[in-house]
Amino acid sequence: MSSLRQLKRAGKIICIGRNYADHITELNSARPKQPFFFQKPTSSILFPGDGPVIRPRGVDLHYEVELALIVGKRLRDLNAENESAALDAIDSYALSIDMTARNIQNEAKKKGLPWDISKGFDTFLPLSNIISKDKIPDPHKIELYLTVNDKVQQNDSTELMLFRLPRILSDISKVMTLEPGDIVLTGTPKGVGPVVPGDVMRAGIRVDGKELEEAKMEVH
Amino acid sequence: MSSLRQLKRAGKIICIGRNYADHITELNSARPKQPFFFQKPTSSILFPGDGPVIRPRGVDLHYEVELALIVGKRLRDLNAENESAALDAIDSYALSIDMTARNIQNEAKKKGLPWDISKGFDTFLPLSNIISKDKIPDPHKIELYLTVNDKVQQNDSTELMLFRLPRILSDISKVMTLEPGDIVLTGTPKGVGPVVPGDVMRAGIRVDGKELEEAKMEVH
Ligand SMILES: [Mg+2]
Ligand SMILES: [Mg+2]
Ligand SMILES: [Mg+2]
Repeated sequence: MSSLRQLKRAGKIICIGRNYADHITELNSARPKQPFFFQKPTSSILFPGDGPVIRPRGVDLHYEVELALIVGKRLRDLNAENESAALDAIDSYALSIDMTARNIQNEAKKKGLPWDISKGFDTFLPLSNIISKDKIPDPHKIELYLTVNDKVQQNDSTELMLFRLPRILSDISKVMTLEPGDIVLTGTPKGVGPVVPGDVMRAGIRVDGKELEEAKMEVH
Repeated sequence: MSSLRQLKRAGKIICIGRNYADHITELNSARPKQPFFFQKPTSSILFPGDGPVIRPRGVDLHYEVELALIVGKRLRDLNAENESAALDAIDSYALSIDMTARNIQNEAKKKGLPWDISKGFDTFLPLSNIISKDKIPDPHKIELYLTVNDKVQQNDSTELMLFRLPRILSDISKVMTLEPGDIVLTGTPKGVGPVVPGDVMRAGIRVDGKELEEAKMEVH
């Protein structure tokens, strides 16, 4: 996956739900016994500099900062114990914001309907630049942060993930074959909340306390 | 979209739920006031002759025969009244079977979780060959059928759709931009039910009572 814009042709974008305990608490959700996931369409990708997130009318728009990984190898029926195969299948990373129409999602949950509309509007997936793998020696030990108008809203370590990358990739690959170029979002830490037009979100990753240039995002 | 196998690189596959009144009744579902939809991953596509649908262990596997359309033009914010623009944006058709892990879907509905796992296993989207547009002069006036072991299980006219193609394409395009190559499944008529390994599904389309060769499917 050499070029960022190629991601628009990703086969699929799979997002893990409820992967940080404190985020589950803040949404009053049940803690999952196993990872569950949903899809965002590639048409929802917003590349760096491609302009604002569009808030659809009547939508309570929430941010969720998440570590994304870009798959580099075909994965099917991966054994969750095979940590090295899982990490080896990762081509690279990106930072992402899983924008969510929270009121539509809550309505869907209540009615037992799919989440796709609440997660899939155009511009609902701002991505950072691609982060090469060597910049993140341990994906379970980095800090994700997101600020809104310079106020820190999310700031947690990926150590807090309930299900780590090998388990996530294993569970997905037992349902859907993962293909090179597919994107996986790994869940959001606590601190999600609303944004309104005019707000400025900034997000990034710190490795050993040091900011990763490639991960820096500014989204209006 | 000249070649069938290119569909594996479709940007997205959008499926309408509950679009035939009698199917809503048979699943004890609520009648939607507007079309709702979910995604299947391109990894779930099963091309003609590519072997059986795989039933994951413990899964209550159901068939749902559906008319699929392949998008030929970019559509964003389409006006539902603009029937000619909607039909003009259709490149071609296919017959499809929206295979569903019904027990997983029912569990997801109960818990307010996404439908993606129940709809997205590998092989869960058998497709026919591509049907060129001129073979279906009126997509709202064809017969879809599906047999299991030569017993007719589904057989209804697309006249019975609650939401017709212009409305479907309009509603989707107000959430997600539709791109050339995207696939849209338009819902299933009544008669859905289980299949087990060894069963043979046959499905097809009749136009003015005449079988369409391109639409004929045989899936094991
Ligand atoms: Mg795709
Ligand atoms: Mg999320
Ligand atoms: Mg269906």
